[in-house]
Amino acid sequence: MSDALSKLWALSREVRHLQCVCEMLDYDAQREMPPLATAGRGEQSALLSAFVHKKLTGRELGVLLNEAAQMPEAAEFPNAQMLRCLKREYEVNSRVPAKFVMREANLCVKAQYAWEQAKKQNNFADFAPFLDEIFALKREYSTFFDYPHIYDALLNQYENGFSAVQVEEIMAELRSAQRNIIQSALAAQPPQGDVLCGKFSIKRQEKLSRMAAGILGFDRQQGVISTSEHPFTVTCGVHDVRITTKYFPDNLSSLFSTLHETGHALYEQNVAEAWIDTLPGAPQSLVLHESQSRLWENIVGRSPEFSACLFKILQKFFPRHFNQLEFSRFLSSVNQVRPSLIRTEADEATYNMHIMLRYELEVAMLKNELKARDLPAVWREKMQEYLGVTPQNDTEGVLQDVHWACGLVGYFPTYLLGNLASAQIFAAAEKQLPGLHEELKQGETGSLRKFLIQNIYRFGGLYSAPEILQQVCGEPLSAQPYLIYLTNKFCR
Amino acid sequence: MSDALSKLWALSREVRHLQCVCEMLDYDAQREMPPLATAGRGEQSALLSAFVHKKLTGRELGVLLNEAAQMPEAAEFPNAQMLRCLKREYEVNSRVPAKFVMREANLCVKAQYAWEQAKKQNNFADFAPFLDEIFALKREYSTFFDYPHIYDALLNQYENGFSAVQVEEIMAELRSAQRNIIQSALAAQPPQGDVLCGKFSIKRQEKLSRMAAGILGFDRQQGVISTSEHPFTVTCGVHDVRITTKYFPDNLSSLFSTLHETGHALYEQNVAEAWIDTLPGAPQSLVLHESQSRLWENIVGRSPEFSACLFKILQKFFPRHFNQLEFSRFLSSVNQVRPSLIRTEADEATYNMHIMLRYELEVAMLKNELKARDLPAVWREKMQEYLGVTPQNDTEGVLQDVHWACGLVGYFPTYLLGNLASAQIFAAAEKQLPGLHEELKQGETGSLRKFLIQNIYRFGGLYSAPEILQQVCGEPLSAQPYLIYLTNKFCR
Repeated sequence: MSDALSKLWALSREVRHLQCVCEMLDYDAQREMPPLATAGRGEQSALLSAFVHKKLTGRELGVLLNEAAQMPEAAEFPNAQMLRCLKREYEVNSRVPAKFVMREANLCVKAQYAWEQAKKQNNFADFAPFLDEIFALKREYSTFFDYPHIYDALLNQYENGFSAVQVEEIMAELRSAQRNIIQSALAAQPPQGDVLCGKFSIKRQEKLSRMAAGILGFDRQQGVISTSEHPFTVTCGVHDVRITTKYFPDNLSSLFSTLHETGHALYEQNVAEAWIDTLPGAPQSLVLHESQSRLWENIVGRSPEFSACLFKILQKFFPRHFNQLEFSRFLSSVNQVRPSLIRTEADEATYNMHIMLRYELEVAMLKNELKARDLPAVWREKMQEYLGVTPQNDTEGVLQDVHWACGLVGYFPTYLLGNLASAQIFAAAEKQLPGLHEELKQGETGSLRKFLIQNIYRFGGLYSAPEILQQVCGEPLSAQPYLIYLTNKFCR
Repeated sequence: MSDALSKLWALSREVRHLQCVCEMLDYDAQREMPPLATAGRGEQSALLSAFVHKKLTGRELGVLLNEAAQMPEAAEFPNAQMLRCLKREYEVNSRVPAKFVMREANLCVKAQYAWEQAKKQNNFADFAPFLDEIFALKREYSTFFDYPHIYDALLNQYENGFSAVQVEEIMAELRSAQRNIIQSALAAQPPQGDVLCGKFSIKRQEKLSRMAAGILGFDRQQGVISTSEHPFTVTCGVHDVRITTKYFPDNLSSLFSTLHETGHALYEQNVAEAWIDTLPGAPQSLVLHESQSRLWENIVGRSPEFSACLFKILQKFFPRHFNQLEFSRFLSSVNQVRPSLIRTEADEATYNMHIMLRYELEVAMLKNELKARDLPAVWREKMQEYLGVTPQNDTEGVLQDVHWACGLVGYFPTYLLGNLASAQIFAAAEKQLPGLHEELKQGETGSLRKFLIQNIYRFGGLYSAPEILQQVCGEPLSAQPYLIYLTNKFCR
């Protein structure tokens, strides 16, 4: 291998290691860090971000990229994919000043803490100034680029190559279609309570989480299951993938939350050994990432087949609660359409509506058509319009998500696009795996996981979402398979 | 303030932040990190160490140090202390190649994991190669310097300005004196069981730890109390000091372990705000650090006065166990002299003997007079010679301490020297605080803590151990006050 290429791979390893350190700091900040440590953590985060930024903008990288491009091996897999990734990182990062990167990293640590406090105390006013500051920073970020839409530069941080125009086209298609699905589902389903409500020992929930994650294929030799206020998945290092969940004493929502995060974790844990510790080898597409969390949580997790297996396990774990229940009741309850306030608890039919609302608010904030102080009122209006429900306070309204506090503006659409991709990818798996439904009924996830590893996970970030979808499904991202899936599930 | 000076303060802040990130990684490695993540964590650690090393050896620092030295404010407090610290860091680090720093950081993460496994499985053979490699690295390190003794360069990493000759002189003085104290204590004390043995709920132990740390003054707004295999204290950031302990279901050793670590934490938490986030402002002297853990754990924690307060608390926490016990039995039990295998559980009379043994083995390993494979046998011999006990396996012998696996060679003497300093410092406090003993009886630690903050903690690392001892006690480090303390306690 040419010298320039191997030096680029080495540099991409260094950057990846440092990114993982940043993730480690964030993981800790969301779990254990004491309150007064926030400012110092912000400085740490800023220093590391600047270090990464320097590596991705340095003259050395520019020279190596030019040198490597001349080599014959530069066109081969995975060199070509690595070069594409580093070239893009070089170009994008070179447009962003180091001082901006440090300011942003520092602000986000502080804003995240402020958000936590504000959410706990239902005190949006204290958080609003941070929100204005974050959106001002994001506005500034988009000026470093020449995209047609103010949202594009931000969206591209999470999903390279997607545009606001594409997102809006898809949303336009979904908006009315999903409204119809919601209405017909609400009309058809019987009124019923939530079978996941009740008293459940935290200790047994923890054990259940470990078991459920294990059934999906989570490897605790290279992973950790822990807790946090807001469940998330994070890669803190090579072979170090952590998922968190939150256990409630009065409901079992931790179960599906664990399935969701395990979906993310499976992607991260199954990147091929050859490039798992490199920047281009790490999963890059948030659409693909979210497709996997949604696939395992919903398409698998709430399917009649896998639910049957889950139900048996629940009967063993919590016999008093589940032994008196019929499976059909369990199945219809975990699939009930229930327009509600909290995005992470939303059912499959209503989930995308939560995303559209957030997207619209983000665009309005970026365009300065909306100020943070006015967000709660607009939030309430839109919730009423989209889902017919109104939050009684900001904690269950505009304060519910951590994303904006972390600086994740432009991220939400990847959830919606990920939903679409999940249905497309699962349909492809069904075609290739004739025994799939029977296996899921037995709690056997091996064939599906193997299919996903083979076609998606092992490549990490080497291929883009459109490339993967073309390879796996033979078509570009489309709303139709997801709408068909929802219709089949909720409108029969 | 001159520009060069303020730039140096800023650089010293950056270095401190990065050091704390390294500590954070280590904290996590000892607590949550999954097994397969070890190699990747080694790479992370190596990268960050190299980053710190570069900042401390860069041309920029050299130029700034020269510039700053010309300024009139350079002679003022705390500029003079900062300059002395950075100058020393510059000189020491410039002698050590960056590649060496990376190799060392990487090796230590892996060795620490290997040690954990070896200790768990009582399998010294698997760990021995790491130990040889670490001592070879330490031998190499000492060649970068021109000290008269092979141990000096290593010792100076933990206690600047101390020499192996000084350590050996002190050890010579202690060796026979402590033997006499042990023998007369053993002859005088009645045979008795350990009142801290018994069944104790982990949940209540956790609560007790939080309460005990709180009584000493541990601030949980800027600190965390958690658990690990080997208790330690670490500063993960500005206002982020973490102590760990280990809870056993069948004894209450966690209590004194918590007092010990809280002693360390008080020092870290009470550095003055003006320089707490800087490199020279962070506590540097391990002798002073250990003096504080030993002072709070032993001189305070096991004193008749504070024990009376502890005993009342224990009666509330564990009435069944402690209500039937007389206080005098409790007091004599927590002060029993009991030559034993494990250093961290050693009583005050025997503790230093454990250190002398380790020091001698370190010197022999460094001089290549001893190979790792021969360590267990020599360990057993020396334990028999010094304490009259012989470990039945390596887990309770040569594998008991994490230090060598972490690369902490040259560190152990600071425990012994810290013991000496603890008695000197407490004697000084007694002179200045006439009501001290009565206060401790009531569980009031405020006056003592204030004295220590005022005279030691607030300065962080700005003054050296000899400077602090001179200021506080009016004399250099000496073995006499400690021997008098032990004699008064154990030989009456």
